Amino acid sequence: MYIYLNNDFIEADKAVVHVSDLAIQRGYGIFDFFRVMDNVPLFLEDYIDRFYASAKTMRLDVPMEREAFKSTLFELIKKNNLPMSGIKVILTGGYSPDGFRISKPNLIIQQAAFLFPPDTVQPKGVKIITHEYVREMPTVKTINYLTGIWTLKKMEEQGAVDVLYQMRGEVTEFPRCNFFIVKQDGAVATPAKNILKGITRKHVLALAAKKFTVKEEIITLNDIAQAREAFMTSTTKRIIPIVQVDDKPVGDGKPGQITLTLLHDLIALEREEREKYKAVSA
Amino acid sequence: MYIYLNNDFIEADKAVVHVSDLAIQRGYGIFDFFRVMDNVPLFLEDYIDRFYASAKTMRLDVPMEREAFKSTLFELIKKNNLPMSGIKVILTGGYSPDGFRISKPNLIIQQAAFLFPPDTVQPKGVKIITHEYVREMPTVKTINYLTGIWTLKKMEEQGAVDVLYQMRGEVTEFPRCNFFIVKQDGAVATPAKNILKGITRKHVLALAAKKFTVKEEIITLNDIAQAREAFMTSTTKRIIPIVQVDDKPVGDGKPGQITLTLLHDLIALEREEREKYKAVSA
Repeated sequence: MYIYLNNDFIEADKAVVHVSDLAIQRGYGIFDFFRVMDNVPLFLEDYIDRFYASAKTMRLDVPMEREAFKSTLFELIKKNNLPMSGIKVILTGGYSPDGFRISKPNLIIQQAAFLFPPDTVQPKGVKIITHEYVREMPTVKTINYLTGIWTLKKMEEQGAVDVLYQMRGEVTEFPRCNFFIVKQDGAVATPAKNILKGITRKHVLALAAKKFTVKEEIITLNDIAQAREAFMTSTTKRIIPIVQVDDKPVGDGKPGQITLTLLHDLIALEREEREKYKAVSA
Repeated sequence: MYIYLNNDFIEADKAVVHVSDLAIQRGYGIFDFFRVMDNVPLFLEDYIDRFYASAKTMRLDVPMEREAFKSTLFELIKKNNLPMSGIKVILTGGYSPDGFRISKPNLIIQQAAFLFPPDTVQPKGVKIITHEYVREMPTVKTINYLTGIWTLKKMEEQGAVDVLYQMRGEVTEFPRCNFFIVKQDGAVATPAKNILKGITRKHVLALAAKKFTVKEEIITLNDIAQAREAFMTSTTKRIIPIVQVDDKPVGDGKPGQITLTLLHDLIALEREEREKYKAVSA
């Protein structure tokens, strides 16, 4: 297995950075993560767009132009040959002489075999809990997961699988997933502000718009209490039905029909995307 | 020059960690920083207390008991022989198999030559600006400085030397310093909540209490507009008079008398601390 580090493909266990890197000194860096299926990177342009946008906002220079970056990703995919996997691209603040100022970023590209949640999860749905917090620089995919990791204990103690952030009753997102509800009138709604705009969120919104009313708006804890369905989206989880939030069931406490329809449509979209890609590269 | 990394003293340029460390993957880690003068670590017990407290809150196991940790610090000081220097101790989330869960932490201890701000700074005072933000987990010395580093540009554009965080008009702290004002009645006041409790802050409060009324309380932007003096404290800066906040002068726009008295007293306290230490270790 290879990791790409700056200019080289190196054996994964030899991919090291000096401790003066600003990620270690000051938690300063951005990243992105996309899925590879049948050796095809799914929705790659979306993820690259977001990666470059995060880098720009955080004043980090991506050391490669977009086309060279894509070639590097394809070369890694070829070298590693992990047909079902995830690729994580990290860009750190670099080796900072004074331990505070941004330097020439270090670029790390890692690939790892990928597992979806077990088949039992979607038919059953999951419990989540809420936690008062809003991410710092929420629109940027920074490496800062202090609160996300810190709340793992609370989550496990309460038998939940994830933590939904809320601030003064307005919910936003999970550490690594977006949040949706299906309202009483059948509209599919997701928080509009103070979130990272997930790529899966984007595609689910587009799919939902073909069949349902779609809303990006403020969603409160009270809206969840009134909702018919709720679900979470992410690159690694696709769509997971949420059947309980804190101590309260969502709707009738079972995965909802609209949620499962969207999951079905998302899987179909991914398949199309793969076929399209294979046709182009054939 | 040596860096201590986990169990070894290694040459500084060879101190590397694998990219799977949770500081790189998720910005997860804590640290502390203290000064060494004449090869004496100043107020060491205070810093060690805080380091262990940060580790505990963030659920990181310090891989050494306190006495072994102190011995390691003294051994590094002896090996490096940098009489006037700073020591930074970082504890990361460790090599995480899944890139999210805390593992066995990596302990990094670095030492570097240390420079106080130039002699011209204290007689002249500095300009600072304000920025709306409150640190996540403010009572813990985490490695998260996303906003602190991100605001450097704004700071430089406005000709300021630091950025004071405020939220809804209540000021808290700088990225790496605490904040004080001297009120119209001569009381020395500093924010009580949502801050990292600095070691220099602690000693300045104790010194101030010998001569003045001291208050730990809510301080607003309006309180600053009414203040006679303002200053910042930190391990690397001791006390720096603040003569301008955003566009407004503080008091008469010159370093204040109480500020300079406290700086004098702090330097004297440091000298006492060094002499005491030398007497004990002689």
